[in-house]
Amino acid sequence: MNLAALVFDAYGTLYDVHSVVRRCEALWPGKGAQLSQLWRARQLEYTWQRSLMRRYVPFSQVTMEALGYACESLGLKLGEAESAALREEYLRLATYPDVAPAMKRFEGRKLAILSNGSPDMLEPLARHSGLPFDAVLSVDEARIFKPAPEVYEIAVRKLGIAREEIGFVSSNCWDALGAKSYGFRAWWINRGGAPVDRLGPRPDAILQSLGDLPEILR
Amino acid sequence: MNLAALVFDAYGTLYDVHSVVRRCEALWPGKGAQLSQLWRARQLEYTWQRSLMRRYVPFSQVTMEALGYACESLGLKLGEAESAALREEYLRLATYPDVAPAMKRFEGRKLAILSNGSPDMLEPLARHSGLPFDAVLSVDEARIFKPAPEVYEIAVRKLGIAREEIGFVSSNCWDALGAKSYGFRAWWINRGGAPVDRLGPRPDAILQSLGDLPEILR
Repeated sequence: MNLAALVFDAYGTLYDVHSVVRRCEALWPGKGAQLSQLWRARQLEYTWQRSLMRRYVPFSQVTMEALGYACESLGLKLGEAESAALREEYLRLATYPDVAPAMKRFEGRKLAILSNGSPDMLEPLARHSGLPFDAVLSVDEARIFKPAPEVYEIAVRKLGIAREEIGFVSSNCWDALGAKSYGFRAWWINRGGAPVDRLGPRPDAILQSLGDLPEILR
Repeated sequence: MNLAALVFDAYGTLYDVHSVVRRCEALWPGKGAQLSQLWRARQLEYTWQRSLMRRYVPFSQVTMEALGYACESLGLKLGEAESAALREEYLRLATYPDVAPAMKRFEGRKLAILSNGSPDMLEPLARHSGLPFDAVLSVDEARIFKPAPEVYEIAVRKLGIAREEIGFVSSNCWDALGAKSYGFRAWWINRGGAPVDRLGPRPDAILQSLGDLPEILR
């Protein structure tokens, strides 16, 4: 398949956020799962709502504001120590076990991350994981979040590659569909067996793991 | 307070969607609450994601697509009869008990609905409830959903009243904050005792019921 670049979402696609859930549980025993779920839901909602309100702030701020909301909602006390512990957890997430072996098989193409994360979150994360990315791209320079087309446009501009020659991978179906709508080849990694989102376009393929992608690229 | 118009969100603010939950439970016993919750969450997410993707479709379509997703996710069979029953339920929602008495006390000001709902959903609903609205406004003409500023702008244009003279009421905090960000006076009806959303602006006041508004307007 004639693709010059592969672009990957970060959180939940390459990087497993489960350690954040574990840290929540350690800080507030018995509440970790519920807190993480509410936190993640508000984090995403705030990215969409702020984008539509034209009130962009970096993802690091959205993330902490969503945490503040979630803690208040559940009656949990969020002090500076808890905030700092969770902020740091985001900087050293582990990759999924299928990521490093698959990456080796993508040689010869440009490889990049394109994430909602702000540069202050993404750069330590990419450095920590030691994966061979040619570019670590943040929505921050477009000042709007996924799935706005301005975000996917960043990859075209920064990599200097036409949209038709870029393949995009995300474990968030709506993100894969945003990329598809913009004009990328787009694959959805459906680790949880969820239905396809009804947003118009369809993913080019649905993968169970990143390990299925090299086969598709032949 | 010198406000020439009061503009109200529809679903969840004036109109109680609980009868839809009841109908879900009647169609799929034991699953009504879970289905309704997932349906509502996806309905809103799709409005935000489609707005950002520049793939607007009317709310009636978003609503049925979200229902399709939610039923597939829970393994529930959605036939034409179930779809039609739920679509119709949306056209005859009851108003909350505090709505009709409060409306009588707003005389002398222009009163309008401003909703994500498409005209084919809103017009039967407003007619059915018999409330004295001067205008029933849909986001449909801006082809983008709340909380984009283009939506709140519709009220200014259609009512012919400056934004500073419009008061906006919603039970969705993010909607009240979208209106506030645009430049309306904005009140959040917080029937469920939730925290304020962290999106930048704050509501001008938080009400427990629409019955608290006449006092504030004095």
